[in-house]
Amino acid sequence: MSSSYGNNIRLTIFGQSHSDAIGVTMEGLPAGSAVDLEELQRFLSRRAPGRNAWSTPRKEADAPEILCGLKNGVTCGAPFTAIIRNTNTRSGDYAPFADTPRPGHADYTAAVKYNQANDPSGGGHFSGRLTAPLCIAGGICLQLLAREGITVRARIRSIGNVTDDSPFISPVSGLDFPAVSPEAAKAMQELIEAARQDQDSVGGVVECIVEGCPVGLGDPMFDGMENRIAAIVFGIPAVKGLEFGAGFHASCLRGSENNDPFIIENGHVAAASNNAGGILGGITNGMPIVFRAAFKPTPSISKQQQTVNLKTGENAVLSITGRHDPCIVPRAVPVVEAAAAIAVYDALLDYKKYRS
Amino acid sequence: MSSSYGNNIRLTIFGQSHSDAIGVTMEGLPAGSAVDLEELQRFLSRRAPGRNAWSTPRKEADAPEILCGLKNGVTCGAPFTAIIRNTNTRSGDYAPFADTPRPGHADYTAAVKYNQANDPSGGGHFSGRLTAPLCIAGGICLQLLAREGITVRARIRSIGNVTDDSPFISPVSGLDFPAVSPEAAKAMQELIEAARQDQDSVGGVVECIVEGCPVGLGDPMFDGMENRIAAIVFGIPAVKGLEFGAGFHASCLRGSENNDPFIIENGHVAAASNNAGGILGGITNGMPIVFRAAFKPTPSISKQQQTVNLKTGENAVLSITGRHDPCIVPRAVPVVEAAAAIAVYDALLDYKKYRS
Amino acid sequence: MSSSYGNNIRLTIFGQSHSDAIGVTMEGLPAGSAVDLEELQRFLSRRAPGRNAWSTPRKEADAPEILCGLKNGVTCGAPFTAIIRNTNTRSGDYAPFADTPRPGHADYTAAVKYNQANDPSGGGHFSGRLTAPLCIAGGICLQLLAREGITVRARIRSIGNVTDDSPFISPVSGLDFPAVSPEAAKAMQELIEAARQDQDSVGGVVECIVEGCPVGLGDPMFDGMENRIAAIVFGIPAVKGLEFGAGFHASCLRGSENNDPFIIENGHVAAASNNAGGILGGITNGMPIVFRAAFKPTPSISKQQQTVNLKTGENAVLSITGRHDPCIVPRAVPVVEAAAAIAVYDALLDYKKYRS
Amino acid sequence: MSSSYGNNIRLTIFGQSHSDAIGVTMEGLPAGSAVDLEELQRFLSRRAPGRNAWSTPRKEADAPEILCGLKNGVTCGAPFTAIIRNTNTRSGDYAPFADTPRPGHADYTAAVKYNQANDPSGGGHFSGRLTAPLCIAGGICLQLLAREGITVRARIRSIGNVTDDSPFISPVSGLDFPAVSPEAAKAMQELIEAARQDQDSVGGVVECIVEGCPVGLGDPMFDGMENRIAAIVFGIPAVKGLEFGAGFHASCLRGSENNDPFIIENGHVAAASNNAGGILGGITNGMPIVFRAAFKPTPSISKQQQTVNLKTGENAVLSITGRHDPCIVPRAVPVVEAAAAIAVYDALLDYKKYRS
Repeated sequence: MSSSYGNNIRLTIFGQSHSDAIGVTMEGLPAGSAVDLEELQRFLSRRAPGRNAWSTPRKEADAPEILCGLKNGVTCGAPFTAIIRNTNTRSGDYAPFADTPRPGHADYTAAVKYNQANDPSGGGHFSGRLTAPLCIAGGICLQLLAREGITVRARIRSIGNVTDDSPFISPVSGLDFPAVSPEAAKAMQELIEAARQDQDSVGGVVECIVEGCPVGLGDPMFDGMENRIAAIVFGIPAVKGLEFGAGFHASCLRGSENNDPFIIENGHVAAASNNAGGILGGITNGMPIVFRAAFKPTPSISKQQQTVNLKTGENAVLSITGRHDPCIVPRAVPVVEAAAAIAVYDALLDYKKYRS
Repeated sequence: MSSSYGNNIRLTIFGQSHSDAIGVTMEGLPAGSAVDLEELQRFLSRRAPGRNAWSTPRKEADAPEILCGLKNGVTCGAPFTAIIRNTNTRSGDYAPFADTPRPGHADYTAAVKYNQANDPSGGGHFSGRLTAPLCIAGGICLQLLAREGITVRARIRSIGNVTDDSPFISPVSGLDFPAVSPEAAKAMQELIEAARQDQDSVGGVVECIVEGCPVGLGDPMFDGMENRIAAIVFGIPAVKGLEFGAGFHASCLRGSENNDPFIIENGHVAAASNNAGGILGGITNGMPIVFRAAFKPTPSISKQQQTVNLKTGENAVLSITGRHDPCIVPRAVPVVEAAAAIAVYDALLDYKKYRS
Repeated sequence: MSSSYGNNIRLTIFGQSHSDAIGVTMEGLPAGSAVDLEELQRFLSRRAPGRNAWSTPRKEADAPEILCGLKNGVTCGAPFTAIIRNTNTRSGDYAPFADTPRPGHADYTAAVKYNQANDPSGGGHFSGRLTAPLCIAGGICLQLLAREGITVRARIRSIGNVTDDSPFISPVSGLDFPAVSPEAAKAMQELIEAARQDQDSVGGVVECIVEGCPVGLGDPMFDGMENRIAAIVFGIPAVKGLEFGAGFHASCLRGSENNDPFIIENGHVAAASNNAGGILGGITNGMPIVFRAAFKPTPSISKQQQTVNLKTGENAVLSITGRHDPCIVPRAVPVVEAAAAIAVYDALLDYKKYRS
Repeated sequence: MSSSYGNNIRLTIFGQSHSDAIGVTMEGLPAGSAVDLEELQRFLSRRAPGRNAWSTPRKEADAPEILCGLKNGVTCGAPFTAIIRNTNTRSGDYAPFADTPRPGHADYTAAVKYNQANDPSGGGHFSGRLTAPLCIAGGICLQLLAREGITVRARIRSIGNVTDDSPFISPVSGLDFPAVSPEAAKAMQELIEAARQDQDSVGGVVECIVEGCPVGLGDPMFDGMENRIAAIVFGIPAVKGLEFGAGFHASCLRGSENNDPFIIENGHVAAASNNAGGILGGITNGMPIVFRAAFKPTPSISKQQQTVNLKTGENAVLSITGRHDPCIVPRAVPVVEAAAAIAVYDALLDYKKYRS
């Protein structure tokens, strides 16, 4: 179903940007697992808006209220549901877009698909705000994975044409701007600021690395790790491209360059390179899973844009005056981690059913 | 499940490269639809090997035997199953790879995942040969889509560093080498031939365009058209990247450049550009769906490669002497069409349930 | 997944008897459908406890709070979520059952399955209280079905050995005790009262009839109407048997007795009898769907019972002093209607995708 | 999907009674498991027709041809597919039923559902013949379960009004007529023979018992063991009722009678009775799973029956002259075992993912 994901842990995300609440239900969490709510809150705060110059000034505490599924802070085997109240909504900002759909948004497609009954306020169910419940689910999976020795971390790989090619060694989750190289980070922020001043926006690429997976996660054909990760990452608004390991660049290589030679390392099978991004035949090979997701520039810009008036059937212009991120990529970093954690943890449960 | 795909038409692909047969079952085909078996065979022949210099000399007729699901050439509502016998197998070619896994292949990951019980001959279930039943399913969906006014066509966009930027106006399905520009096609073939002579291989990119979709196909979040297409396209062996519309390039654009302005065209809503690749919020907007899939170079190369011996736990070298394509991209073109057709037709059935 | 149901409308039920809230999310509701909340509340009130002698004195308003999915009272295409706060909980009542599981309840199986991390208060996620969100989902489906000319109604067919064989002509939804024959109703109530006075409980059978379905709902083998209804009805706590049409009695008939002769009636195909319960080959035949669900007696009784102490590993006795229904069958009647409505509406959407 | 079943092992059944072949694909079998093909054949033979007086004289070897999924007789991780060729078909027998649907069969509902494109020969996909591939899948699951100490066995509980109340201690799989009591078996056979001589048929009840399950199989609400078993058992043609443990009779009991007291037995928790049929809250409690499925009498009878002519819209009569079982219950016994084995093994894999 459209807002559900997972074979084993099954999450369902609900809510519109301006409905009473948004939230998530997760089925299939292992019973008896403590959930560290403070750690979860710290993770959610990395995504929350309103903290700095490049994010929307809409302030939301993003503090989840847990309705069920925990007993004394520990999963009890029943579905887990958490909600976040929508308190700081200004639906009036969106009134005009019912008739004049915003370019780059789902206003038009949702209006047609849902027979004009859709909720356009704040983008409705299509809003980036729905990544908050995704992060609740992902934050819990991150905790579960950590106990299995599996870590997930993402970083900004590029903003516009500024790329950070530094090796991704130390984590960036503690940084306000999660790029590895301070120089690249500075150039990226300048690019974002320039776009903002031009009443415009800019896109970028997030890179994610998952370490510690056993050999054997993922399944052939349509349930490989690439398929699983793609099926959730393309659920993050604004993602328009995804690649694993060498990715698109692999199409420019020869087989002798792209194949990762197997080697014995410390008595174990490893690979001398990781163009495969840790995945062969859809299945993890013990090397880190590496993928990159391309984010288009925020479609909401203050600059005047051309659109149509659905009522009159005539061309029209519009300016978007609401509160918007000139670049969503920094806030998307924990969202990508959340998505990856969910996909990997779900695959891990599939793996486990044949290991006991 | 790993070898199944689809919400409404549900296909399950079975078989190993060297098992008695490979095949596909499709549930959910609409009853009463004629299947043109000659047209289907022509489509399958575009994928079949052994026809030219850049494909493996393994000759397979790829003639499907239909076991059930049709009555007098018309779908009867029961599951459709077709098989292809594996007649031209040379399993001996693969005997060494059980112990010394081929770099870039699933030999190693499958051996670990399946406790050494996997079938390594010809890559087993991970073989590119399994794209033949995918094409049977896709070929049928192509016929069903055509009756709804929806067309799907793909082309080689690049081989190695040679890119064909010609607009994709006329179809290339009738060409032996399915690129648009004859000049680019020539340069691409030279690149493939050079790789072959070096006992090496080369990758490339396939671009696919789907025209005629109504506004409203696809669903939010995890069942958007991007998610659906990704979930099947990453099931094609060797795909390591996927992008829609402007894709990765969109990350370098500003919002004012990337947003597709809505316009009134012939009295209908259209877009002045198509950076979105026909998809907004996961839902088709009436513009063509456009996506590109990156294929890594064929991992099977005759050149000597480094690997390990799983039995002795020591480093080893191997040369792959079987029959292999120096570039699989030309044969992958109809496979990408098949995958896209399945994803779109399945989404069309989801769409229809709210239209009657 | 365990607490999810449906191919097209997908509902997920969450909550424990004593968690902060219980609720339901429904995906796939058709956009643009008005939901009559007063009618929904009336339906929910038929299930709510505390209204009469044969139900638990635990009073719950069962007033749903709708978090999302409606816009001005109309479905907007986004998932619908409603919750009910648990206000009147007395978890202390259940403290002893963590160690001495109640016979006939899930206390023991849940404790073992969930490694003693389960929430035993009030039965946790296994509580009959979770039928309230099922009724929210079912109440909405009842409204949607009514607009398609399909009605669903259930009645008490038997309590203990008292059976009501009156033809099910007029609805009983307005009755406090939903049996057709007033004489039978009186005898049933006396049986319940006798059980209550003996600190005991009693079971019964609910019969449900669905009228107005088109010919063609349901699919062969594992998605037939019987399978679909069974998959949801066995999710109602205490159901231990289910039969369609003549059901178990059909096993005592000869083919010439059990087969329903086809006849032409008012120019249409009908059947002269309905031993099939409206379903042939899993598919509706235009006659009313008729099924009966057998409910075991409420396992919670005040009478002393034998159990074990899981901590000491010794036999033990227990008396259940909480608030319980001496017979849940009267309150189960709308729950069965809800379950049937969900199953039928979901099948209707599958049907529709081949009708446009 | 309609002809698929299972969360972990996913089986898809294909074929029509008179198509070239019928068969089954199973995904998710654990790799490295030997399949004893002779034992499988013995199991299939218990279902095969043509062996005695009470089954159809249509003789089918029912010898499966395994297309893929095994390597040297051992599961290799790839999907398993086996087919059975339809060799002994006499489609001409069924020609009249396209216009005059047989009462009690799916002829009419399939014709309407599939727009007259359905395959009525031999009942098409609705034929009891499709239980042969179900038995292939079930036979493999029986072998896998046996290695985990879990056994599944069924028996004829009743034919018409003749019931066999003998305790089900010793297996009956070796018997030509699988009832426990020889006296009951004799009376049952006489009943069948009488029906046959009257050109009529008779129904019955199959009882199944599953022993050796760990505590904890099955999940709450819609994935409980009752739901899982019901979802597959109602896929067996002619099943119209299903009950667990005391079943419908439980509705006549008081709680104090129906509740199974927990006791300590040999140091373990057990129950003093088994009215629950081994299932509490949808989850196995360590006692045997016990269920009974009611089969309607074979709808195909030689006696003249009333029907309608779909072409002329007038009442009509028909006599069925093909080859049919006067009672399918004896042959249904292994089919019920197969269905139970699949449901239990699938639940076991769900259980295992939380045990490693």
